[in-house]
Amino acid sequence: MSLNLQTHTEHFTNPLYLESGRILEPYDITYETYGILNEDKNNVIVICHALTGSHHAAGLYEGENKAGWWDGLIGPNKTVDTNKYFVICTNVIGSCFGSTGPMSMMYPHHEPYRYKFPVVSIKDMVKAQRILFDRLGIHEVEAIIGGSMGGMQALQFAINYPNFAKKIISMATTYATQPWAIAFNKVASEAILKDPDFKDGNYNPKDIKENGLSGMAIGRMAGHISFLSHHSMAEKFGREYKRNDGLFELFGKFQVESYLEYNGQNFTKWFDPLTYLYITKAINIFDLARGYDSLDEALKNVTCKLHLIGFKSDMLFLSEEMKVIGDTLKNIGNTNHDYFEVDSDYGHDAFLVELDKFDTYVKEVLDGKE
Amino acid sequence: MSLNLQTHTEHFTNPLYLESGRILEPYDITYETYGILNEDKNNVIVICHALTGSHHAAGLYEGENKAGWWDGLIGPNKTVDTNKYFVICTNVIGSCFGSTGPMSMMYPHHEPYRYKFPVVSIKDMVKAQRILFDRLGIHEVEAIIGGSMGGMQALQFAINYPNFAKKIISMATTYATQPWAIAFNKVASEAILKDPDFKDGNYNPKDIKENGLSGMAIGRMAGHISFLSHHSMAEKFGREYKRNDGLFELFGKFQVESYLEYNGQNFTKWFDPLTYLYITKAINIFDLARGYDSLDEALKNVTCKLHLIGFKSDMLFLSEEMKVIGDTLKNIGNTNHDYFEVDSDYGHDAFLVELDKFDTYVKEVLDGKE
Repeated sequence: MSLNLQTHTEHFTNPLYLESGRILEPYDITYETYGILNEDKNNVIVICHALTGSHHAAGLYEGENKAGWWDGLIGPNKTVDTNKYFVICTNVIGSCFGSTGPMSMMYPHHEPYRYKFPVVSIKDMVKAQRILFDRLGIHEVEAIIGGSMGGMQALQFAINYPNFAKKIISMATTYATQPWAIAFNKVASEAILKDPDFKDGNYNPKDIKENGLSGMAIGRMAGHISFLSHHSMAEKFGREYKRNDGLFELFGKFQVESYLEYNGQNFTKWFDPLTYLYITKAINIFDLARGYDSLDEALKNVTCKLHLIGFKSDMLFLSEEMKVIGDTLKNIGNTNHDYFEVDSDYGHDAFLVELDKFDTYVKEVLDGKE
Repeated sequence: MSLNLQTHTEHFTNPLYLESGRILEPYDITYETYGILNEDKNNVIVICHALTGSHHAAGLYEGENKAGWWDGLIGPNKTVDTNKYFVICTNVIGSCFGSTGPMSMMYPHHEPYRYKFPVVSIKDMVKAQRILFDRLGIHEVEAIIGGSMGGMQALQFAINYPNFAKKIISMATTYATQPWAIAFNKVASEAILKDPDFKDGNYNPKDIKENGLSGMAIGRMAGHISFLSHHSMAEKFGREYKRNDGLFELFGKFQVESYLEYNGQNFTKWFDPLTYLYITKAINIFDLARGYDSLDEALKNVTCKLHLIGFKSDMLFLSEEMKVIGDTLKNIGNTNHDYFEVDSDYGHDAFLVELDKFDTYVKEVLDGKE
């Protein structure tokens, strides 16, 4: 069977009540589906995307040559088998790929929100998805799977909508964002804010897509460091110098420098700077225990089977942060969870790159063998 | 006895032949001494400073309240006992605290070098020091001690001037700078270069001292991440939010963000941006094996006792990089070295902060007990 990729946008006129006390009204949610929803609407798997990801998790758009960000995992006869499951991935609220975010028009004006956009939290992102699923008549899903910020959403689902998913797989993430990760985001936000072409948030998006935004490129470079590891960088680049550059030229470049430059500059052509500020804010303030006396209390809500995957060399969200969740569950008497550690040198990005190291585990979870 | 702090600058008119093939002529070297040189001039200990360090390693200048960067280690009756030893610390060539660097006047013009300054290497820094010591009549020293870029210098001394020091202590450094460290420097150099106030290197230093340079502040923030560790950050800052800032305010700040901002901005008032580019370049191109077939061949030159200190949580230069040096020495049959690992959670900065974790070891080395 084919992937049956479909992209939709749903419009909501009721206000979305945000954790901050503010509201978002109206709002859109763009989402993508793969496979076919069965009659009972009970063959659904939800995929949650990371910071700069989108609803485009699998398949190829016409005329493009880059598949969705988890294409290796999702598709016919793949780990998340679209012959069997109806897979949904939504673009989170606050993002810039169709769902309402800071550069969306602020109704009833025809101007983008920019700084008038409210800060959204991971909890808000999850709530918006829950409302979307409701409209689609989906009241229970087989599984929710996500990594990094997607893993935060998966955990937040487990706490806030405990009966919604039978199984939740959360990987390469944390129970509360630690200062190390906040610090990397800080470098990025400072670099964006201090770039004169950002114009204090009043930039023309077209200019940025055309000319780039060096501040965001610099921030993305810092991001790339946090996504990799000492070993993956050493293996990928070594101390190779760019061909024709002299070692004693001040601007001669190591390969790793070219890589960062290229990815940094390229990033500014497909991502929006204000969105970057808002989404990193959502990540920074992520804390499962917010609104509870402790993480223990928060995790007492979890009733579905919770599968935690940590990556040994993850430098952004340490595998020990994933273990804290497992240990806390154990302490409060929850026996319905497990922790799987991926032996990887790749760093945080392993959840996007080294699929072969955890796809069997994910398949076993979905097949009910784990 | 008093510390007997003295600061001097020596002027050299002979050219300094650099590793790049270029020359530096004339040049100055600023250095500081503590204690008293004995008649035989054989009670000398050399201290080597790190990236943003200077010759001011110990003691207090009149009217200042911040002591030298290794004041806890150096002084009367301290680990490096200035009652016994004559301690010298020189500002490296290429730096901005008195020795000739990119913002020094380019003889015979009365304009700073700026980009006309040649790229200098760690080997060049060490050579310049060797020439200074020669002029001072010091032809052999008791020990050379350095951490981070200072540790690189110490290792380079061991290879290039094998009979100069009886003992060498190198800590928190590497045998060749790895892409992870180069990547952090890249964020900083990009941020500096892209800042319009840097004016492509034609800035007025006075303006920068007065107004700061946000690009360098951003780069320094990235640096601070690399100097710390997940655990030291978590312990230092936790998820504390700045008082009076609202969690859902886009510009509300976590403590770790305030810390980075403060240190970043402050840094630009006491360090020079072009110098930052040149010194990080020297660090990036540091490779003990350059000019040799391999690290083995390079390390075969070492004849003095070489003491290596690694810090367990060092995220900038992994302790395993220090171990590579020890293992390589062992492989080539060198039994005159040892490796000491400091059990620290503090990260790279532990070599500046957690002196109590290695000062006993350093003392034993100096006393000939290690």
